[in-house]
Amino acid sequence: MKDRVKWIFSNCQDDLDAIVIVNGEEPLLDVAFPYVTGTKAGLFEGCLGVITPDGRSTLISSALEETSARGGTAEVVTYRNSKEREDVTSDLMKGFRKIGINGQGITYANYLNVRKLAPNAETVDVSVGLESSRYIKDSEEVDRIRRSCRIASRVADEISGMLKEGMTEYQMAAEIDYRMMRTGASGSAFATNASFGPSSAEPHHEAENIVLKRGDTALFDFGCKVDGYCSDITRTFFYGELKDWQKRMYEVVEQAQLAALAVIGPGMNGKNVDAAARLVIDASEFKGLLIHSTGHGLGLSVHDGGRMAPSVDLVLKEGMVMTVEPGVYIPGKGGVRIEDDVLITKDGYEMLTDASKEMKVVQ
Amino acid sequence: MKDRVKWIFSNCQDDLDAIVIVNGEEPLLDVAFPYVTGTKAGLFEGCLGVITPDGRSTLISSALEETSARGGTAEVVTYRNSKEREDVTSDLMKGFRKIGINGQGITYANYLNVRKLAPNAETVDVSVGLESSRYIKDSEEVDRIRRSCRIASRVADEISGMLKEGMTEYQMAAEIDYRMMRTGASGSAFATNASFGPSSAEPHHEAENIVLKRGDTALFDFGCKVDGYCSDITRTFFYGELKDWQKRMYEVVEQAQLAALAVIGPGMNGKNVDAAARLVIDASEFKGLLIHSTGHGLGLSVHDGGRMAPSVDLVLKEGMVMTVEPGVYIPGKGGVRIEDDVLITKDGYEMLTDASKEMKVVQ
Repeated sequence: MKDRVKWIFSNCQDDLDAIVIVNGEEPLLDVAFPYVTGTKAGLFEGCLGVITPDGRSTLISSALEETSARGGTAEVVTYRNSKEREDVTSDLMKGFRKIGINGQGITYANYLNVRKLAPNAETVDVSVGLESSRYIKDSEEVDRIRRSCRIASRVADEISGMLKEGMTEYQMAAEIDYRMMRTGASGSAFATNASFGPSSAEPHHEAENIVLKRGDTALFDFGCKVDGYCSDITRTFFYGELKDWQKRMYEVVEQAQLAALAVIGPGMNGKNVDAAARLVIDASEFKGLLIHSTGHGLGLSVHDGGRMAPSVDLVLKEGMVMTVEPGVYIPGKGGVRIEDDVLITKDGYEMLTDASKEMKVVQ
Repeated sequence: MKDRVKWIFSNCQDDLDAIVIVNGEEPLLDVAFPYVTGTKAGLFEGCLGVITPDGRSTLISSALEETSARGGTAEVVTYRNSKEREDVTSDLMKGFRKIGINGQGITYANYLNVRKLAPNAETVDVSVGLESSRYIKDSEEVDRIRRSCRIASRVADEISGMLKEGMTEYQMAAEIDYRMMRTGASGSAFATNASFGPSSAEPHHEAENIVLKRGDTALFDFGCKVDGYCSDITRTFFYGELKDWQKRMYEVVEQAQLAALAVIGPGMNGKNVDAAARLVIDASEFKGLLIHSTGHGLGLSVHDGGRMAPSVDLVLKEGMVMTVEPGVYIPGKGGVRIEDDVLITKDGYEMLTDASKEMKVVQ
C-alpha cells in the first residue's frame, strides 16, 4: 500500500503535503476513497482518507464502521460524532500547507469544509493525477478484478440455460445478480442490463417488465464487485429462431471485437483499437451503427477513466484493464454487443473474462 | 411536476433565475436529478436538470438515454457529445443571472464547469432548500415509496422460511435481492445487510462469507428501489434456539419501537421520538447500547435528509417519510434492530412497511 501511495504522488505535482479524499453521503462516495485506504467493503459516508508523500495512509472513520475500516490497509482513526470528526481532521491537517483534493470526486460542500478545517492550506485539484494513477493497476487490484471477472464469466455461461419464453427482463437481471452474489460477489457492479428485442438496441437500457418472445435478440450487460473491484461483460443471444440480419449482426460484431483484440497492447493508442473495430462495422451493412466507444477503463469504478474512442488519445500501458465492447444497434429492432475485459500486459493482453462467445440460438 | 418545481423554489431564496443540477460519473449521481426531472430509471452521467421558477423543468440528456429521459416529466434536450452538451447548456443558461446549485450533490469539478458555462451568473448553494423540499413527499413520491415498502415487506415475511443452517450471509443477501427484483424492484436500495451472530452487533455490517449456526441472532437490513424510490426495513430472527439475553433484547427493542411510534406525528420534534425509544432502552439492562439515531428520512435516497436523534431539531410534518429503527448491540455477541418506514399524516402516521414483527425462533 505504501507503494500505491507513493505511486499516486508520483503522478501529481511534487510539492503537496497531502491528498485528502472525502466521501459524501451515499451515493456520493468517491471511488478514490477505497483506492487510498485499501478498504474492501463499507460505506464510509462522510469519512476521510488522507495520504502523505512518505507513503502513509490514514482513514478517518466513523466508529460504526471501525471493523470495515480495519479491513483496509490504512491507519484508522475513529470518531463518534461530527464534532469529533472535525477535531481529528483539523488536527491531522494542521501542518499541511498544500493539499490535493479530488475535484471530480468531492462535493462542493465537502470541498468548502476542507478549506474551513485547514484554513492556512492551499488546495489543488489532483483529480487528473489520481485518475491516471488508477489507470495502472497494481497486483492487488488485478487480483480483485480477476476474481470479479471470473464470477461474471461463469454466470454469463449459464445464461443460455436460464432463458425461457415469457420471462421478464427484471427476472433475468435478478437471476444474474443472484448467481453472482451466491458465488462470492458483494453485489452487481451496476444495474444489470437485461434487454429483450427492441430494448437491446438501447445500449444503456435498464431491465424492465418486458417479456421474452421467440425471435428476440437478448442482450445482457452486467458485472459484479469483488472487494470493491468491478467486472463488466456483455453477451448476446437469440431466442427461438435466428433471422439473417441477426446472424450477420453477430458475425460483424464478433469480427469487430477480434479486430480490436488483434491490435490491443502496450504502446498502442486506444483510438486505434477503436478504429480497428469501427472499420469492420463501417465496412459492413451496419455502417455508422457503433454508437459508443469501443472500450473503457475498469477497476474500482465501471468507467474507471480512459476510453478507447475516435477522438480520445490514450496510449495503453502494461497494467491497464480495459473493456473491449463493439456493438451494433438498429433502433426498434435490436442490437448486438460483445464485451470482454482485458489486462494490458508487457507483450499484449490477457483476457480476464473467459465466457463463451459462440453464437447461440436458445430453443 | 410543475407543482414540485414551484415547491422547490418556495423553499429557496426568491431571486433565483434557475436551479441547475449536474450529475457526475457513477456513483456520483445527484439524487436531486431524478427529483427535478421526474425520471424513473437511467444513469444520466454528466447530464443536467434545469428548473426555473415558472415551473419548467428541462433535462439535458445524452442521446444514448433519450428513451429513459422521456420517461420522466421534464422537457428533454439531447446531445451526442460533450461539445454539444456544452453548447445546449450554455445556450439554456444564457439569460440566467443567479443560479442555484446543489453544493452537497455536485462535484467540485462540475461546479467549476457551471461557472465556466454561465460566466455572468452568480451561483448560490441551495442544497438546504432542496433537501428541505425533499423532506415533504408529494403524492407521486408517496406512491413510489409505498410500492417499494410493499415489496420489501413481502420479502421480509419470507425470510424465516429461507433460513437454513450452514448458509452464508452472502447467500441470504443474494436471495433477498433476488426476491425483491423478481417482484418488481429495479434493485436493492443499498447493499443488503445480512448479519449472522456477532456480525449483527455491527449496525452497518455488509454480508460476508459467514455461516449461519444454531444460536445465532440473524439480522436483515435491506430495502429496494421502485421508480427510484427506496424502502428500508430491518427484521431480526433467532436461529435454532433462543437465549434469555436474546429474548430480552428483542422485547426491549420492540418496546422501544412502540414507544417511538406512540409519539410520532406532525408537530412532534424528531428528537423526542428518539428520546421515547432511547428511554426504554436506557431503562433496561441494555442501557447505552442504542448507538445510532432512531430514524432518518427516506425517499430518493436511503438517508433522505433529516434524522431523529438526540441533538437534532427536526419538527415532523405531514408528508415526511421516516424510518423508525431502534436497536441494541453487544459487540462480539449480537444485536437486534427492528425498522419500519412511516408516512407522517395529518393525524399521526401511516405504517408503510407491514411485515410481521413477531419474535421468531426459526427451527
